[in-house]
This record gives sequence, structure tokens and C-alpha cells, in this order.
Amino acid sequence: MIKDKSVQVFLDELASKASTPGGGSAAAIIGAMGAALISMVANFTVGKKGYEDADADARDILQHSEDLRDQLTGMIKADVDVFNRVMAAYGMPKETDEEKAARSEEIQAALKEATDVPLACAHASAEVIKLCQPIAEKGNKNVISDAGVAVLAGQAALRSAALNVYINIGGIKDAAFRSDRQKQLEDILAGMDALTEDVYELVKSKL
Amino acid sequence: MIKDKSVQVFLDELASKASTPGGGSAAAIIGAMGAALISMVANFTVGKKGYEDADADARDILQHSEDLRDQLTGMIKADVDVFNRVMAAYGMPKETDEEKAARSEEIQAALKEATDVPLACAHASAEVIKLCQPIAEKGNKNVISDAGVAVLAGQAALRSAALNVYINIGGIKDAAFRSDRQKQLEDILAGMDALTEDVYELVKSKL
Repeated sequence: MIKDKSVQVFLDELASKASTPGGGSAAAIIGAMGAALISMVANFTVGKKGYEDADADARDILQHSEDLRDQLTGMIKADVDVFNRVMAAYGMPKETDEEKAARSEEIQAALKEATDVPLACAHASAEVIKLCQPIAEKGNKNVISDAGVAVLAGQAALRSAALNVYINIGGIKDAAFRSDRQKQLEDILAGMDALTEDVYELVKSKL
Repeated sequence: MIKDKSVQVFLDELASKASTPGGGSAAAIIGAMGAALISMVANFTVGKKGYEDADADARDILQHSEDLRDQLTGMIKADVDVFNRVMAAYGMPKETDEEKAARSEEIQAALKEATDVPLACAHASAEVIKLCQPIAEKGNKNVISDAGVAVLAGQAALRSAALNVYINIGGIKDAAFRSDRQKQLEDILAGMDALTEDVYELVKSKL
């Protein structure tokens, strides 16, 4: 699995002429890095002298950020798997009418999954952004710049995942599915760029 | 070295209660991912039927993006090394006047290096952003979303590196150094958010 490969090998494979890993896996890793940086700031806040008032919140944030990190790390592989499913679907035989129908059905099912995987990544990345606000407000000031890096990583992951939703949704024939997922994505994206700027400015003001 | 550790171990260490790796290394990796994704799009364009007119440009872009990827990958370790140098400087003995003077001198030298390392990361990340425009314009449309992920990664890396410049520059007493590096950073940042949006919208329009 990609997460078990070295950073160097991952980067080499990302750069290579191979379809996977691609931007979807990159988005998941960047989001996971954002979640990890929130955890780092929380870890430097829990039990820290001078941060007694923030202790309970930092513990809650840490639990949440580690959960998001798990989710996003899982999406590195999910993105590769669903990409391979879509490619396999397009490669199915299409000689007879039965074959054409089966192929078309599988392509549609694969594209729906290929929409829902980055949509889940977008959702988790937006949660990363939201979690940066309380940790930037209450977290240990000595590592507060890491909350700023976290929010930028969350934003890059969110907007990257959105691109991967847009690609796959275009090929889906089920109009109700399309409009439902488009609405979900719009809801996830709403306000996230403004929140990112707020957290970034908050962090800058504390440096 | 961090780049030889698995993605999972890197994320675990990033999240842990250890000062390194931190946001500086994360920024360098995100920037390197941006450069790698440009390389991927270029690799899918060079020698590709239908992209003969873009071939020479894609080869140039690939050379440049791979050079940036090398630079940014090197900065993962450079960030850790300079952080350790700053910590070691603050840990120097400060009993006698001679010790105080030596410690103060080393702190200042270390902080200058700790400003120049993320400044170099910011510079390389801005180059990643700039390189996304021609590859998004001319690159293989089948993988064009990866150019969109690349520009978002470049932006997150650039703004993260800027935070790390801001932290360290504050402690530097040499006013001429401070204003020189502040000016350099402003020049690097100028126009990059607008360019990121332009490339992102260009990519979206091609999906």
C-alpha cells in the first residue's frame, strides 16, 4: 500500500508516467498531514503548564484530529482502488448487446464510487479546516504556526478533492445522483476559503 | 532521513509530541508533491499523440519540475537540521559573559539560517505555482486535474513556508537582514494567490 512506501518512493511514483498514485491520493495525504499537524499542536497543549484551561478542549480536538487522520490515510488507497475500478470498467468487452449493457452498468457504478471517494475526502478535509480554528485559538503558542500549516493543507486537500468530484460526476447519467452530490459538495465548500483565511490571519497575529 | 520513512511513519511522527518533523518539513513535502504532479502531467504529454505541438515545452517543464522536486525534497531534511541548530543554540551555556556572547552569536546565526531555509522553500514553491500555468494550458487533458492539485499544493507550501519565515525573522536583531528577507518574501508572494486561482479555474474549465 502507498502509505507503507517511503516518502521518496511515493513522490517518484507520483511524478512517473503511471496513472496511480495521482491527485486523489495526493489530496488524501495532504489532508492527513493537516490532521496530523492539528494533533501535534494538541499534543503540545494537553498537560502543558499554562494551558490548563485548554486541556479538555485539546484532548477532544486530538481525538477528532486523529480520527480524521485515520479516515484520510485510508482514502489514499481508496482513491487508487476506485481509479482501477473505473479503468477496468472501461476495459470490459463490448461486442454483444449484453456485454455493452453490463459494461455500461459497471462504468456508471464505478463513476458513482469515484465521485463518492473524493467527496468523502472533501468532507474530511473541511473537518480538518474547521478543527484548526479552536486549536489555533487555544493551542500551545510555541507550535501555533503548525496550526497555520494545517489549515492550508486542509484547504489544498479540500479543493483538490473537489476537482476529483467534478471530473467523475460529468460522466454519470443519473441526474438525481449528480445533483445530490453537487449539492453536497457545494455545502462542504461553503465558507471554507473564508475560514481558512481567518485561521491563517489568527495564526500570523500570534507569531 | 524523513524521505526514507514510510508515509504512515512520517504522518505518525508529524502528529506526535516531538518538535520535528513539523510544519516546515510538511511544507517542503507538499511543495514536492506539487512538483511531482507537474512532472506526472508532463510525462503524460511528452511523446503523446495529439500533443506534438506541446512536446518541446512539456520536456522543458518536466526538467524544471524535477529540479524543483529535488530542491523541495532536500528541504524536508534542511528544515529539521536548522530547527535542531536553533534549539542547540538556545541550549548553550550562559554563565559567563563569554558564554553569553557566544550563545547570542550562535542564536542569531541559527535564526538567520532558519529564515533562509523556509525562504528558499517559499521561492521553490512559487516556481511550482508558476510552472502549473503552462502545463495546465498545454498538458494532456486526461490528467489535467493533477495540474490543479499541483497548483493548490504549491500555494499551501508557499504560504506555509511564509509562516516559518515570519516566526524566525522576529528574533533576528540585524535590521538590514530582516528588511532584506521581508522584502524577498513579499516579492515571492506577490501575485501568487491570483495566479493560483487563474490556474485552478483554467483546470476546472477543462474537466
